[in-house]
Amino acid sequence: MRIALGVAYRGTAYRGWQSQPDGRTVQDHLELALSQFADEPIRTLCAGRTDAGVHGLNQVVHFDTTRDREPFSWVRGVNRYLPADIAVQWSAQPPADFHARNHARGRRYAYVLLESAVRPALESGAVGWIFKPLSLEAMRDGAAQLLGEHDFSAFRAAECQAASPIKTLRTIDIGRRGAYWRFEFEANAFLHHMVRNLMGGLLAVGQGSRSPDWLGQVLAGRDRSLAAPTFAPDGLYFIGPRYDAELGLPERTAAMDWLP
Amino acid sequence: MRIALGVAYRGTAYRGWQSQPDGRTVQDHLELALSQFADEPIRTLCAGRTDAGVHGLNQVVHFDTTRDREPFSWVRGVNRYLPADIAVQWSAQPPADFHARNHARGRRYAYVLLESAVRPALESGAVGWIFKPLSLEAMRDGAAQLLGEHDFSAFRAAECQAASPIKTLRTIDIGRRGAYWRFEFEANAFLHHMVRNLMGGLLAVGQGSRSPDWLGQVLAGRDRSLAAPTFAPDGLYFIGPRYDAELGLPERTAAMDWLP
Repeated sequence: MRIALGVAYRGTAYRGWQSQPDGRTVQDHLELALSQFADEPIRTLCAGRTDAGVHGLNQVVHFDTTRDREPFSWVRGVNRYLPADIAVQWSAQPPADFHARNHARGRRYAYVLLESAVRPALESGAVGWIFKPLSLEAMRDGAAQLLGEHDFSAFRAAECQAASPIKTLRTIDIGRRGAYWRFEFEANAFLHHMVRNLMGGLLAVGQGSRSPDWLGQVLAGRDRSLAAPTFAPDGLYFIGPRYDAELGLPERTAAMDWLP
Repeated sequence: MRIALGVAYRGTAYRGWQSQPDGRTVQDHLELALSQFADEPIRTLCAGRTDAGVHGLNQVVHFDTTRDREPFSWVRGVNRYLPADIAVQWSAQPPADFHARNHARGRRYAYVLLESAVRPALESGAVGWIFKPLSLEAMRDGAAQLLGEHDFSAFRAAECQAASPIKTLRTIDIGRRGAYWRFEFEANAFLHHMVRNLMGGLLAVGQGSRSPDWLGQVLAGRDRSLAAPTFAPDGLYFIGPRYDAELGLPERTAAMDWLP
């Protein structure tokens, strides 16, 4: 039987999502906990792999198991075997052909940044940090040049394995609460490091070192070497995937209220 | 010359504020950083000592030094020697007789709790956790019975060293954002574990296992053994002290916008 889970995690202590030989990734911890709870080996496939230090609010995975358990026992039972900074949020039994990655119609990320003369302390790892004030108007003008279906080669990491650099960037929402900025990105899919590279570009515009039009020129140039540096993973959250509503999979988890 | 600093820290990794022989406290790290930056031994005195796991938003300390430095260099310079989860937020030069503890007219604490069927993950350590829903009305009724000048012996830890159990509890504000409750307490001063014991009592009322009137009876009984258990330190924040406005010491730091 196929099971889908929503998973939240703080990425600070892990070497990213994807399983590694040293076992220090979120996937490794999740699969170990699932296998202990189910008492059989379980491998998962996720909606969107995250880099080292990146957090997950509603990462979705699917897996197959021979065990027939109450849905909520996949939450409470598995969480007993997980470290304090990873927790299953919900479980569901989707159609047998449900595929967490292939069926995702969209993916959302959020960046949270502290704008302050002083570096973060109690929110270290949970926020990025900038000390030069940002212009909301300039960033909104710049963001508008990136929306739509484009070849995003200029914002793609060299090691990206995607079949095509053409993606549809649907929204970039920018807001703030007090000293904290929140940037929210939605696309059908993202290239490797694409959100971190977009963020680097938006900050160059927001801090006035580049004009909003420059972002459109970088996009059109399709040359990574012309773009801004990749921004730090601190403060980056994979909000989660979007699926067809008829699948009935939750798109919200409690921690979405935690971010500014 | 006497210097005052505001300090923010995530308490999760530390054995509380107060210096210990093993050096694993916030005070130990701060004094080591100050002494390295000033190149002379520096000892500090704080406005309110915090337990292991408790966070600080605007802890205030004072110390004496022979070094004459630009005010902001006590922020930027000392932060270079501090771990990522502790940072000086501001510095000021108060009158030579300023005393961070004795001159505090009031102290504020906040508790942030996640109400959810699922335990916290990415906010673990930063929030307390309850899974049984809370009644705001019952807690407000209960809180009203605790306000004012009282003998708080019923909410005092056995090891408390305060000269008197009589304190003035000025406010208990309760609100929520999504799944997160925020409780804010202000008193002229707090007894040892008083906030954690008050929180245990409010939760017993909020979850319906006790009536709001019971809190008034516990207070009047002045007997710790009749009160609710001490609540966990997870999710407890020392917001900071209040001083006379003429001292001109900052009461806000950026991280106050971080809490729900």
